Amino acid sequence: MRKIVFLTALIFTGFTLFAQTNDEQTLKQIYKSSLTNSKCYSWLDYLSNSIGSRLSGSENAQKAVQYTKAQLETLGFDRVFLQDVMVPKWVRGVKESAYILDNKIKINIPVCALGGSIATPKNGITAEVIEVNGIKELEALGEKLKGKIVFFNRPMDPENIEAFNSYSGCVDQRYNGAKEASKYGALATIVRSMNLRLDDFPHTGAQSYGDIPKSQYIPAAAFSTNAAELLSKTLKVNPHLKFYLKQSCQQMEDVLSYNVIGEIKGTEHPENIMVVGGHLDSWDLADGSQDDGAGVVQSMEVMNIFKNIGYKPKNTLRVVLFMNEENGGRGGKKYEELAKTNNETHIFALESDSGGFSPRGFDFESDDVNFNKILTWKNLFEPYLIHSFVKGHSGSDIEPLTSKSIVKAGLKPDSQRYFDYHHAANDKFDAINKRELELGAATMAALMYLIDKN
Amino acid sequence: MRKIVFLTALIFTGFTLFAQTNDEQTLKQIYKSSLTNSKCYSWLDYLSNSIGSRLSGSENAQKAVQYTKAQLETLGFDRVFLQDVMVPKWVRGVKESAYILDNKIKINIPVCALGGSIATPKNGITAEVIEVNGIKELEALGEKLKGKIVFFNRPMDPENIEAFNSYSGCVDQRYNGAKEASKYGALATIVRSMNLRLDDFPHTGAQSYGDIPKSQYIPAAAFSTNAAELLSKTLKVNPHLKFYLKQSCQQMEDVLSYNVIGEIKGTEHPENIMVVGGHLDSWDLADGSQDDGAGVVQSMEVMNIFKNIGYKPKNTLRVVLFMNEENGGRGGKKYEELAKTNNETHIFALESDSGGFSPRGFDFESDDVNFNKILTWKNLFEPYLIHSFVKGHSGSDIEPLTSKSIVKAGLKPDSQRYFDYHHAANDKFDAINKRELELGAATMAALMYLIDKN
Repeated sequence: MRKIVFLTALIFTGFTLFAQTNDEQTLKQIYKSSLTNSKCYSWLDYLSNSIGSRLSGSENAQKAVQYTKAQLETLGFDRVFLQDVMVPKWVRGVKESAYILDNKIKINIPVCALGGSIATPKNGITAEVIEVNGIKELEALGEKLKGKIVFFNRPMDPENIEAFNSYSGCVDQRYNGAKEASKYGALATIVRSMNLRLDDFPHTGAQSYGDIPKSQYIPAAAFSTNAAELLSKTLKVNPHLKFYLKQSCQQMEDVLSYNVIGEIKGTEHPENIMVVGGHLDSWDLADGSQDDGAGVVQSMEVMNIFKNIGYKPKNTLRVVLFMNEENGGRGGKKYEELAKTNNETHIFALESDSGGFSPRGFDFESDDVNFNKILTWKNLFEPYLIHSFVKGHSGSDIEPLTSKSIVKAGLKPDSQRYFDYHHAANDKFDAINKRELELGAATMAALMYLIDKN
Repeated sequence: MRKIVFLTALIFTGFTLFAQTNDEQTLKQIYKSSLTNSKCYSWLDYLSNSIGSRLSGSENAQKAVQYTKAQLETLGFDRVFLQDVMVPKWVRGVKESAYILDNKIKINIPVCALGGSIATPKNGITAEVIEVNGIKELEALGEKLKGKIVFFNRPMDPENIEAFNSYSGCVDQRYNGAKEASKYGALATIVRSMNLRLDDFPHTGAQSYGDIPKSQYIPAAAFSTNAAELLSKTLKVNPHLKFYLKQSCQQMEDVLSYNVIGEIKGTEHPENIMVVGGHLDSWDLADGSQDDGAGVVQSMEVMNIFKNIGYKPKNTLRVVLFMNEENGGRGGKKYEELAKTNNETHIFALESDSGGFSPRGFDFESDDVNFNKILTWKNLFEPYLIHSFVKGHSGSDIEPLTSKSIVKAGLKPDSQRYFDYHHAANDKFDAINKRELELGAATMAALMYLIDKN
């Protein structure tokens, strides 16, 4: 028996080694293709500089649908199609203004309305300010909040190594702050921007009134971290200073928009679907090159790489450019709704929505069997400085996908600079490094290849 | 026997686990200190924005010596001292100019003299251009080079994952180009900037005439990657176009400058010295925040972290801010010369001279015994996303150090963006991310701690 076991082991080891060598070669081709022959940077140039910001329901979002559809049609998919999605349409209106009125001194403040917020009255709101460290403090303050502007000032925690953890620990102030403060009769909320550094950019982002009656909606705005520091200091000296806020944003009727999808049928298992995607919409203050122009063009590049190296996926591959991640997530929900209606089986989904920075690894949502299998590929990624394979949140757009035993993953780029740009006026093309973007695309293609082949 | 072995193993494992837990705690403190209580970013702000570029022999370099000495004196060292170093002094003079003369069309080109180059004649040089792919091509061209401007245009190889490998494969054109082209009677050389991206910044850097006679020196300049692409294309259409170059740089007499050193005596082995350092000089086109202001302030921060967490090194620790890395390496050589004279024993040296980007690991020069020991600490760094522990070049300033069985290391930050800034006018403070800088400093302190303690 011993000999036979030994022989079997040898054959098996030989086979595994052979497979690994093959995979090594393919990964080399993938990275080479991306670093020398990719289109993702020029696609992003167009999306960012020729189209610009792409808030759901905007004319630019529609232009982005048309542009990416046309580009996908050049990549050799079996079909490129649109999925109808009704999306919310929120418009910022004329530029917001805000200032601190410290006795007779007026200090202008960089401010922006939060997405989904209502406008202030035409002449703005002028009121005293109460600074809080978070939503929990509201209850204790109770009646004192009445007629005041609530100032949420808990900063992102600098101790976390991963910046997304600091964001998660902070963003409730932005998302739920107005809804909660309104319950105590506050007139408006202003929130310290979700930004780890001190600068002058206000960062927008979604907020929600939840299910409170419309009559209780109050305006919600964000202001820069420098301004938050200044207001906090000034309040300590003069707790009765006044704050002025004016914004004229508006929620309109929902409008028709689209997910953009390219599909190539699997050569062996066409019934199994693998998705790679990012979201096509962005906030309105900049062209959203990091969030999520990068993810869009990287997902498109996965197909371009497969085309360039001549790899035909065994399972059906879909590049999905989701609409409305930022303020509704309707694209992701619609995609899953139609997948259910059509009785589709999704085996894998990968999202890139954490910026176009140097890739470090992936966050996985997976059962242990699949995750352990994925871990055996770690060594294949080491030459490309990809090391982090952990369990964690994959992506907002693929969150609704619920096929049985589906594996989901999110590309994990270096996170340190992400919140310097996130939802702010500086999230522009010049914040993107071409090589970092391409390395991210290659890393995604490498994982898609390994999932597909194994 | 079995029981005893088992027991011994248990005790040993227990001890190792205890040590690891202790180290885990200390690393936590180190990273926390750096991310919440560091001085490195404000030191760099001063070095970059209040002092500025610090070319060896310049007034600014002297200001940087005084400033960093004064700052080191606040950090609790046993002594802070200067080492005299005679350094070369090269001055750029009035801004260079260059243009392509394509028939009657004049196209201005962003250009800069290479460090150490001579000037052109007062009225500049106008000549035909021969494009080459590298020094090897010169010999075959021979006589054809006479009276021409040689244009070195081999780009950095985009296929490498680590940008420093692309730099190494390319920089001979800049460093030796003029010396080699002069042998064939060329009038001047222009080199494509060592930059992986296409932009309009010329990147300077050292060049050397080696031992050719002074009478054979020819002017050497670099120009932007965009300009190199343009010239190459234009040459294909009109091989007889002319290129005009004018520069007025000058090599002066050597002047006195300094290495700046802070030293704290080891509590257990004061005779063993550990060095952590970067280089204080920079090129003259910008404030050199990445090269190597970052390494300077990170090295200083190592001591600041130890002070903040109350760690007293067992071995003597020196923070060494080397002078003249860029165009002579005299500081590093002088440091080693004095170490030999004083019969000092250096057990470890760590340099940070690859930019202030997110740290990824270290490159080590070490024997296998020490390297294998270091590898056992890898898991301690994983929570901080530090994964790359490989053998490789440590740093130019510590290269001369030759103590027996010394271990040398170089901090290895993410390299993708480094050559966007290297030696160019955009290597400025705004290219630095505070958290990335601090994570680098913490990673250095963590390694210094482990080396010291073990």
